[in-house]
Amino acid sequence: MREHPARLIATKRDGGELTAAQLQDLVSGVVDGSLSDAQLGAFLMAVCCNGMTQAETAALTLAMRDSGSVLRHDHVARPKIDKHSTGGVGDKVSLLLAPWVAAAGLAVPMLSGRGLGHTGGTIDKLAALKGYRTDLPPARCAEVLEQCGYVMMGPSASVAPADKRMYATRDVSGTVESIPLITSSILSKKLAAGLDGLVMDVKTGRAAFLPREHDAIALMESLCSVGRAAGLPVVALLTDMDQPLGRAIGNAVEVAEVLTALDGQGPPDLLEVTLALGVEMLLLGRVAHHAEGARELLLRLLRDGVVKQVFKHNLELQGGDVAVLDEPQRLGRAPFVVPVLAERAGFVVDVEPLLLGRSVVDLGGGRRQPGDAVDPLVGVVVAKVMADAVVAGEPLAFVHARTKAAAEQAHGVVAAAVVIGDERRRRGPLVRRRVV
Amino acid sequence: MREHPARLIATKRDGGELTAAQLQDLVSGVVDGSLSDAQLGAFLMAVCCNGMTQAETAALTLAMRDSGSVLRHDHVARPKIDKHSTGGVGDKVSLLLAPWVAAAGLAVPMLSGRGLGHTGGTIDKLAALKGYRTDLPPARCAEVLEQCGYVMMGPSASVAPADKRMYATRDVSGTVESIPLITSSILSKKLAAGLDGLVMDVKTGRAAFLPREHDAIALMESLCSVGRAAGLPVVALLTDMDQPLGRAIGNAVEVAEVLTALDGQGPPDLLEVTLALGVEMLLLGRVAHHAEGARELLLRLLRDGVVKQVFKHNLELQGGDVAVLDEPQRLGRAPFVVPVLAERAGFVVDVEPLLLGRSVVDLGGGRRQPGDAVDPLVGVVVAKVMADAVVAGEPLAFVHARTKAAAEQAHGVVAAAVVIGDERRRRGPLVRRRVV
Repeated sequence: MREHPARLIATKRDGGELTAAQLQDLVSGVVDGSLSDAQLGAFLMAVCCNGMTQAETAALTLAMRDSGSVLRHDHVARPKIDKHSTGGVGDKVSLLLAPWVAAAGLAVPMLSGRGLGHTGGTIDKLAALKGYRTDLPPARCAEVLEQCGYVMMGPSASVAPADKRMYATRDVSGTVESIPLITSSILSKKLAAGLDGLVMDVKTGRAAFLPREHDAIALMESLCSVGRAAGLPVVALLTDMDQPLGRAIGNAVEVAEVLTALDGQGPPDLLEVTLALGVEMLLLGRVAHHAEGARELLLRLLRDGVVKQVFKHNLELQGGDVAVLDEPQRLGRAPFVVPVLAERAGFVVDVEPLLLGRSVVDLGGGRRQPGDAVDPLVGVVVAKVMADAVVAGEPLAFVHARTKAAAEQAHGVVAAAVVIGDERRRRGPLVRRRVV
Repeated sequence: MREHPARLIATKRDGGELTAAQLQDLVSGVVDGSLSDAQLGAFLMAVCCNGMTQAETAALTLAMRDSGSVLRHDHVARPKIDKHSTGGVGDKVSLLLAPWVAAAGLAVPMLSGRGLGHTGGTIDKLAALKGYRTDLPPARCAEVLEQCGYVMMGPSASVAPADKRMYATRDVSGTVESIPLITSSILSKKLAAGLDGLVMDVKTGRAAFLPREHDAIALMESLCSVGRAAGLPVVALLTDMDQPLGRAIGNAVEVAEVLTALDGQGPPDLLEVTLALGVEMLLLGRVAHHAEGARELLLRLLRDGVVKQVFKHNLELQGGDVAVLDEPQRLGRAPFVVPVLAERAGFVVDVEPLLLGRSVVDLGGGRRQPGDAVDPLVGVVVAKVMADAVVAGEPLAFVHARTKAAAEQAHGVVAAAVVIGDERRRRGPLVRRRVV
């Protein structure tokens, strides 16, 4: 480090602005270890308290991107567009969206993460597909991308290593909730993936990473402006996470729901959010020139089975069990599948996503700590969603559990999460705002 | 830790108030290591940015005090009063003040520190006295205190260990400048020393730890109010550190200056600041009932040689070379003592303390890093102070150096630090404010 880190940190503490060179120095220190844990914790907190200018956030993002290898996909002629979500309960959008927009002509080199806390992770869901590999070597990833139009990749130690240490530090030190830090963490990795454009799915509502709409909108604006400053066009949609997305929450159960969606039988909210994101991706990649055309193209590709074909092609290329497409039962089934029955008649007025997400973690389907093992088969599948009419005794949901005791524990939580009332209430809009 | 540290840290990040139990938890984590470096750095920065209420600072202080052993001196009948300074250039007050107020009937169990950066430390100065031990075991310290009225003690691993880790972390992470953290660092150690009262010498001016008077006054108010809340009466004086205190800066040279002061020949500014602090200590300890009486008593004790007798008694008890009182040359002399001569006639209009303090560090008489060795003999002795008339060619100062090269380097700095002008300017008041 050219300057003593304590001085750089104190500059941020006192509300000053750091230069790009100073931020590069700090990020170098993150990677080579010359910035100690205490210094990193203090720096991150100073950013939490005093924020960063857009120029600082862009410089930090670029320095983090450059802390590791930066992929290029010059061999791929198609526009390379990815989608990233801030995470939610039941969010299996990536699994459906990637083959969908690939079918429409995009290339999607999708870097995904593992789940933590009440939000699931795409990599964990894909692990429910027997044999599916998300750790292919870079050269093979490039081939898969070229051959089927998308590739699903897990976290790589070589991409933005600065983010890895920073994120692990933020997670334990109360410095997660910071728009500049969230922005740089997301964009540094996406910038390293050699994209032409990025669509962000920023969730809002109780189970969102940033529950307050105000914060979520600030993040959208930050992602778009910093992306622009860093040379990556970003479009952000604000989508609802006040209810679970779709009906299945877990790993294999979510994959099963995606399989039904590929057959055109998916839950309407999942289809609508995925379509909205797909439309933005097609527009960003200029394979469509207006939203209506993009939407029609996507619906036709789904109806005609093209999306399912692309999904199947990708399954073959990444080592997954292709037979699962015709025999979804090959995904497996938890030993205990227990219904949660309605105690009264009425309408579902709420399905509380945080309770359900935590319940799946308790069942073993998610992680309390990074590194925890995940059980692919457990989860919760909701049978009734908001505004559905219910008869007493009818199943509201099914708990998929490894043990009877776990099923019983989850049963109580799920019963509390699905609330029955007398008046039919409609869910709010699924897509609430668009920022470019 | 009962709660996850990240939650406690996030509370402070968001401007919330922590309870005493939560702060105790954090401090326990500091000592037992369950709070990681990153968490500690983030917590300290959150306090820097968002401050603490007086109740929080008091609770933090008490938790830090209770992180180690808390001394009691119940066997000592005298009022136990200490003085603590925020540190300065040429600040040898403790060496003179402790025997002085002990002669007047106080007991002074003085916990002192080592120097760092441009400010010296009492323990380093005492190390210039051959044989003097500041690492006596607690039982022996208690005996010395009882027998001569004061004892000089160095940092102990058993006193407020939480502060040790916190201070080391603050030092490298840009989290030093925080009134609540400075307050708790100082008071936790003083509270652990079993005092009946504390007089704080808070410096202000260019070479002060908090150069801006506004910050220094805020610290004084915090020390007094938190001390009161924690059961320790505190009186704080704001004293000048815009010029060095006395003429000698270094270790042996400062001890030599104290020896002349014990004979009533000390520099007037050193005597005035020491007297002002001594008066407050006597009033706090109720061995005097008004300032004028306290001042007269102290001046008489100095004049009558009682202070020197107490100093001598302490020297005997702590293992120092008593003969130094009659033969100050036994302190030793650096190999190179080089005068800095006035290039022109006029008046000294400034003696820049930061330059001189740093010059002594460069000579080897101070520390850049904790753990650096300190050369007792090197230093700078100013011959002319602010408002003194100067004739061209007259010595302005003497550099005491280990090598010729070091002397030459320091010569230039010292020549720049002592500024000669045409108009006689007076130094500002030495004691600028009193807070109780």
